[in-house]
Amino acid sequence: MPSRRPDISNLADAVLRGERAALARAITLVESTRADHRDDAERLLARLLPRAGNATRVGISGAPGVGKSTFIEAFGLMLIGAGHRVAVLAVDPSSKRAGGSILGDKTRMPRLSQAEAAFIRPSPAGKSLGGVARRTREAMIVAEAAGFDIVIVETVGVGQSETSVADMVDFFLLLIAPGGGDELQGIKKGIVELADLIVVNKDDGDLAAAAKRAVADYRHALRLLVPADGDAVEALSVSALEERGLDRVWQTATRRLDAARSSGAFAARRARQAQAALWREIGDGLIELFRDDEAAARALKALEAKVAAGKVTPSAAAQQALEAFTRR
Amino acid sequence: MPSRRPDISNLADAVLRGERAALARAITLVESTRADHRDDAERLLARLLPRAGNATRVGISGAPGVGKSTFIEAFGLMLIGAGHRVAVLAVDPSSKRAGGSILGDKTRMPRLSQAEAAFIRPSPAGKSLGGVARRTREAMIVAEAAGFDIVIVETVGVGQSETSVADMVDFFLLLIAPGGGDELQGIKKGIVELADLIVVNKDDGDLAAAAKRAVADYRHALRLLVPADGDAVEALSVSALEERGLDRVWQTATRRLDAARSSGAFAARRARQAQAALWREIGDGLIELFRDDEAAARALKALEAKVAAGKVTPSAAAQQALEAFTRR
Repeated sequence: MPSRRPDISNLADAVLRGERAALARAITLVESTRADHRDDAERLLARLLPRAGNATRVGISGAPGVGKSTFIEAFGLMLIGAGHRVAVLAVDPSSKRAGGSILGDKTRMPRLSQAEAAFIRPSPAGKSLGGVARRTREAMIVAEAAGFDIVIVETVGVGQSETSVADMVDFFLLLIAPGGGDELQGIKKGIVELADLIVVNKDDGDLAAAAKRAVADYRHALRLLVPADGDAVEALSVSALEERGLDRVWQTATRRLDAARSSGAFAARRARQAQAALWREIGDGLIELFRDDEAAARALKALEAKVAAGKVTPSAAAQQALEAFTRR
Repeated sequence: MPSRRPDISNLADAVLRGERAALARAITLVESTRADHRDDAERLLARLLPRAGNATRVGISGAPGVGKSTFIEAFGLMLIGAGHRVAVLAVDPSSKRAGGSILGDKTRMPRLSQAEAAFIRPSPAGKSLGGVARRTREAMIVAEAAGFDIVIVETVGVGQSETSVADMVDFFLLLIAPGGGDELQGIKKGIVELADLIVVNKDDGDLAAAAKRAVADYRHALRLLVPADGDAVEALSVSALEERGLDRVWQTATRRLDAARSSGAFAARRARQAQAALWREIGDGLIELFRDDEAAARALKALEAKVAAGKVTPSAAAQQALEAFTRR
């Protein structure tokens, strides 16, 4: 980052013109944790926000080994072929430094990374999932203002990252794949309730039969475990390698999203996500104020040990810690 | 409640002696929201906490119509017959007044409510799920100190009440039942990840075949949707009406809990639940301080509208609200 404060007005205009270098600089700015950069980022986002919001936001979660990069590249190229402009962002809180995560690694999606109508960005680094998620939501605003009409947010599914991603997208798909035996790779307890669509990859070669069986099994299982209504989770198989089935994934997504737009559910979801993000940020900010408070921190150290040992109830401990905080 | 402050020391002793009237008075005290009662409740809990913690805590969720009261009564009587002392508590945030909820309604469990070795308590009333959950956790401490070695916490599954209950128990079971057609009653998206065991009721009369089929279907579905490991979710069928299969439910629970005790997972779960409760209470307390702050509340009203309208990012809005709060 240059030491001279960037001209935010010019940077915003360049982003709005769709200039790639400006887009990258703008996202680097929103990812920065320096206080002066945060101020600049807020000013930049204020200019870009009115021009954001018109993209379709798709979350994709897939464990290592299910072929996520192959899928996203093939899916992205199909969308570009249909006239879209596709940004690919990532949420990976285990990434130690910007560009250090395997997600959004351009070498794994070489064709897509070279497409003019695509923009791939690795996950921001971050100490907390909340911080990484916030930066990704802000990068999404920048990408949308720059003219990308589909934003894909990918995650490997570590910790609560799927929940974070589901909270910022309009449609969430889980990518899984047959492992060669009877088991399926990529299932994590709890993910089913987040997904709108389960995509079974590797419907090709030796695993084709297993992939098709998995789709049938999943359709049956999902009917049992998820109430049958308009929002039932669907399942289908694809071959990212042979680039088959990707159009059906998009058709499924657009069918459901069009229905959601008509019913008002789409806008309601976006409003709910924004409110939830607001209160999450408020809560995180309050906890940070609390943790930074010396008196509260001192009280807390002793209280956490007593709670773990069953010597004081969590409520009593919380009350004592809050009293130490408010007395300051 | 008498106007004279109760003698907490005597009340604690009476609870520890297992006196029923004292147990009921003590739980009423912890449910009270009056500030002076809260002080007394904290003092009471401080005396009882060292004698709590040795019960097995079982959560049971079941939608209306699956036969939950019949099940809990039959299950409770079986446990009492085996020498246990069983308390039944409830979490129902829709309950408008203490005793107003259908849960814990003694008229639905007449035989159990008359058993000396059982104690049934309706859900506390409460404005928020967090408040109801806290009161239930504290009622659990009182019941355990009074000598009940199994505490059942039931919920109908409204909102996030299952998550709350799962956060305070050692074992969580979901009760469902065939509805007479192909569909199963009682499934809610997301509950599967909370449950340790799915119990299909009504394995009797006309629904017996459907109940058995449901168990087979669920076992298959759960293997697909939840990774196969030591913690795989199990399924079995019972007839609460004919009092069959209840012993197998308990055997399943004790088998898994014994394994968890041996591995240390049981203690780790309890410690994690206590820490989570501590931070939830701290977070709730901080949000309450924030909401009560005039400057923050004023700023918030305007900001929430701007966030919903997409005019300001959630982060920027949160920052402004927090600044209004800290400037006070």
